[in-house]
Amino acid sequence: MSNPTYNRITPEIADELRSIVGDAYVLYGDAEKLEPFSHDEVVDRRYRAMPEAVVRPRTAEEISAIMKLANRRRVPVTPRGAGSGLSGGAVPVHGGIVLLCDRMNKILEIDTANMMVVVEPGVVTSEINAALAGTGLFYAGYPMSLETCYVGGNVAENAGGGKAIKYGVTSRYVLGMEIVTPTGQIVQLGGKLVKDVTGYNLAQLMVGSEGTLAIFTKIILKLIPEPTVAVDLLCLFPSTAEAIAAVPKIITEGGVTPTAIEYMDQLSVRFACEYLNETIPYQKAGAMLLITVDGTDAGAVERDYEAIGEQCLAAGAIEVYVADNSTTSARIWKVRRSIAEAFTIMSPHQLNEDIVVPPAAITKLIEALEELSARYGLIAPSFGHAGDGNLHTHVVKDPDWSMERWEDTWPRMQAELYARASALGGRLSGEHGIGHERKRNLPLFVSQEYIDLLRTIKRGLDPNWILNPGKIFDA
Amino acid sequence: MSNPTYNRITPEIADELRSIVGDAYVLYGDAEKLEPFSHDEVVDRRYRAMPEAVVRPRTAEEISAIMKLANRRRVPVTPRGAGSGLSGGAVPVHGGIVLLCDRMNKILEIDTANMMVVVEPGVVTSEINAALAGTGLFYAGYPMSLETCYVGGNVAENAGGGKAIKYGVTSRYVLGMEIVTPTGQIVQLGGKLVKDVTGYNLAQLMVGSEGTLAIFTKIILKLIPEPTVAVDLLCLFPSTAEAIAAVPKIITEGGVTPTAIEYMDQLSVRFACEYLNETIPYQKAGAMLLITVDGTDAGAVERDYEAIGEQCLAAGAIEVYVADNSTTSARIWKVRRSIAEAFTIMSPHQLNEDIVVPPAAITKLIEALEELSARYGLIAPSFGHAGDGNLHTHVVKDPDWSMERWEDTWPRMQAELYARASALGGRLSGEHGIGHERKRNLPLFVSQEYIDLLRTIKRGLDPNWILNPGKIFDA
Repeated sequence: MSNPTYNRITPEIADELRSIVGDAYVLYGDAEKLEPFSHDEVVDRRYRAMPEAVVRPRTAEEISAIMKLANRRRVPVTPRGAGSGLSGGAVPVHGGIVLLCDRMNKILEIDTANMMVVVEPGVVTSEINAALAGTGLFYAGYPMSLETCYVGGNVAENAGGGKAIKYGVTSRYVLGMEIVTPTGQIVQLGGKLVKDVTGYNLAQLMVGSEGTLAIFTKIILKLIPEPTVAVDLLCLFPSTAEAIAAVPKIITEGGVTPTAIEYMDQLSVRFACEYLNETIPYQKAGAMLLITVDGTDAGAVERDYEAIGEQCLAAGAIEVYVADNSTTSARIWKVRRSIAEAFTIMSPHQLNEDIVVPPAAITKLIEALEELSARYGLIAPSFGHAGDGNLHTHVVKDPDWSMERWEDTWPRMQAELYARASALGGRLSGEHGIGHERKRNLPLFVSQEYIDLLRTIKRGLDPNWILNPGKIFDA
Repeated sequence: MSNPTYNRITPEIADELRSIVGDAYVLYGDAEKLEPFSHDEVVDRRYRAMPEAVVRPRTAEEISAIMKLANRRRVPVTPRGAGSGLSGGAVPVHGGIVLLCDRMNKILEIDTANMMVVVEPGVVTSEINAALAGTGLFYAGYPMSLETCYVGGNVAENAGGGKAIKYGVTSRYVLGMEIVTPTGQIVQLGGKLVKDVTGYNLAQLMVGSEGTLAIFTKIILKLIPEPTVAVDLLCLFPSTAEAIAAVPKIITEGGVTPTAIEYMDQLSVRFACEYLNETIPYQKAGAMLLITVDGTDAGAVERDYEAIGEQCLAAGAIEVYVADNSTTSARIWKVRRSIAEAFTIMSPHQLNEDIVVPPAAITKLIEALEELSARYGLIAPSFGHAGDGNLHTHVVKDPDWSMERWEDTWPRMQAELYARASALGGRLSGEHGIGHERKRNLPLFVSQEYIDLLRTIKRGLDPNWILNPGKIFDA
C-alpha cells in the first residue's frame, strides 16, 4: 500500500494555524521564504521537497492543537530541528506543514543533584555543555555538527558521533521525554529516573524514530561527571589497510576503552585541511587515526594513551603525535568535523554512506570500498567512527565524468557495496538515519517481517499516517 | 475492555503441542508436575495461577509453531525463564501454555573480536561471565539472583541489579535479538552493531516488555573490558538518615562514579546474616552502605575508594571497612543478595516494593517509609540500590498481628507510600516489573494516555492478545 492522499493547505487552514501559534509564526504562500525548509544537509537535490507552510510553535499545547488540526484536515506534518540531518528526515516529501522547533530552545533545568538536564528540542547541542560549565558535569553526546544541530534532532535520529565507543550514542542519555503523539496527545515518557520498568520503554522507542512517531517537547538527559583530563593522539599510518587493521586491536587487546577512534584517509584530511586553510602533520600519511582518551585521573589517562600509542606503533604507525592541550585538540577535531562539509562544497554529485558493520568487520568493509572504487573508477574518500564500525564515505563524481557516466556507475557500485556490508552483518545506517534518501534500500538490510513490525507500530500510533510520512518505509 | 476469553487446552491441542516439541517436552494433565509453574518468587499466594500445559521448545521454529497454534486455538501463552521474577511476570494468569525456555540454554558464540556474546534465553546469567574467564571481557549485568536467573528473563524485565550506577541496566548491553512475535513470525532485531538506526529500535522496545510483546530466542549482548581491580567498602552509619544522606553526595560531589552503592538497614543485615549464619561487622551500625569501586588501574581505584571513604566519614560514618580481597567481598555481597530470600522465609505475608525515584530523592523516600511504617506499626526493613534511587522494602506482617489487621493496614500504608513516591517523580517499579502483582497500581504513577500507548502497541503486535495476557495492563 502506498501512502495516503493528503489535502493541500488552504488559506483557511493557514488561518487556523495562525490562530494556534500567532500570525508571526506561520510562513505560508511565500516560496522564497519556504525554500530553506525544503531540504536538510543531503546534497542530492532530488531529495528536496517544498513545504506548503512552516509553523513555529512555542509549546506542547500548540503542537497538540496543530496535530489535531492536521488529522482533521488530513495534512502531513514534518518536524524539523536545525536542518542539519543527513537523510532527509526533515524534508516534507508530501508537502504540508513543516513544524519548526527553533522557538522551543530553552534549557529548562540543570538538576545537578540528580545529574540531569531538562531541555526543549530546539536547544543547540553544544549549548548544553556550555551551560554546564563549572558544575563538574557534562552531556556526553558529541555529534559532529554539535555547534549547529538541535538536541531534538539528535534524539530523533539517535545521533552517534565521535565519542560513542566509550560513551555510547544519544539513546544512552535519554531518560524521559514529553511528547506530542501523532494524534495530538501530550504524554510523559520515563522521568528523572536512571532505571524504570513501569511499562514499555517508549522513550527508547522514540529515540531514533526520525520524527515519525512523535514530536518531542521536553527531553530529560542524563549527565555524567566531566572528564577532567583528555588527550588526543594523532596516529599516522602509511596506508589505510594498516590504520584500519589497528582499530579492533586497540579496542580489544589493551583493556582500555578509548573515548574516540576516528579514521580519516589521506583524501579526507587533505580536502578538509584545504577547506579550513589548516595544516596538520599529514604529508607522509596514507591514513590516520585520531584517538582520544579521557578520564578523571591524569596518571591513568597517561598510562592508557601510552599503551595505545605503543599499540599503534606496533601495528605499523609511522608516527604518533600527542595533543595534550585543548588548542591542538580542537584544531584536529575541527578538521575531522569538517570533512563532510568539505566534500559537499566539492561536488553536489556524491553518495554519502553511513554503513555500520560489526566493529571487527570494519577492515573488510574498507577493503571492499577500496576494491569497488578502484574497479568502478570512482573517487571514494572514507572516514568515520572506525571504533564502532561506522564508516562514512562520500563517493564523489569525478569532475571529468559526464553525468550519464556517473548516473550509470554509482548505482552499480552502491549495490555491490551494500551487498558486501549486508553479508558482513552490517546495516544501512549507523547514525544518519534512513529518512527518504535511504528508504528504498532498507529491504537490502532487514527482513520484510521486520519492516512489517515497524509499520504496525507506526499505524497504531498514527492511524492517519500524518506525521512525517514517506520516511523509513511507506504505508 | 477486559481481556478476551480464551479456550482451554484440550487433549487434542496437547497432542498438537507434542507433535511440535516432542512427547517428552509437554507437561499436561498432571497437576503436581504443573504446580511449580504456577508462581515465581512473589511470596503472596494470591498471585499464583495454574498452567494447563508446560511446553519446553528447543528452537525458534518450534516456538513459532506454538504461537501459530495458540492463535488458531485462542490459547494464551506465558513465557517463563527460571521463575525467579518478582512481579508474577511468568505466571499464567489466564491458564493456557507456559512456554519454558530451560532447553534453550546455550551460549551460542563468544565473539571476542567484536566484544559480544550471543546467548539463548535460558542461559543462567552467571554462566556468561564464567564462560568469559580468561578473555579479559565481561558482561556487566548483575541482578541479585544472577546465580539462578536466566538472561532471557533479565532482558524481559530489563533487570537492574547492583552495578547499574556505573554500568547501567540490562538494556545498555542488548544490541540485538532474534524474536518470535505473538503471531509466530521469527524476526531479527538489531545485530552485532554498537550503533544502528536502520529502523525503529525494536530491540529496546522488547527489553523490559515482560514477555508480552515477543519471545526472545537469541540475544546479542555487548561485553566490556573486564575491570581488573575491584574494592568494596562497607561503611557503617549510626542511622538510616545519615547513611542515605551520604548517597547523593558520593555520586555528585566526588567526580567518581562508583560501581555500586547498596543500602541495607540494620534489620535487613541482621535477617540476612541469620539466614546465612554469617557474621559481618554490623553490631554498631544503624545502617550500612556497601560501595564498590572498580577499574583497570589499581592506583586510580585506590584514589577513588579513598575519596569515597573520606566522604562517608565526613557524612557521619562510624567506620569504613575496606574489603580488597575477593573472599571478603563475596561474603558481603552474598549477605546483600540474600536479604530478599531471608524475608521470604520469615513470612509469606509481606509487600515487596520496588519503587524508584530520582536519585537525589532517595532520602525523602526513606523518610516517608520510616514515618509511615512507624505510624502504621509495620515492620519495614529497607535495602536496595540506593545509588540509583531504587528502594526495595519488604513490609512484613508482624507475627503477632491477626490477618484481619494486616489486611486492613497494608493497603492504606501502601497507598500513602505510593502517593509520596509519585509526588517525588517516582515510579512503581525500577527493575522487578509490573506483571500482574503491580498492575492495578500502574495508574497511580503514569497517565491514562501513556497506558493507551502501551495498549496500542500491544494490540498491534498481538491482535489476539495471546502472549502473556493479564500483565502490566489489561486489554
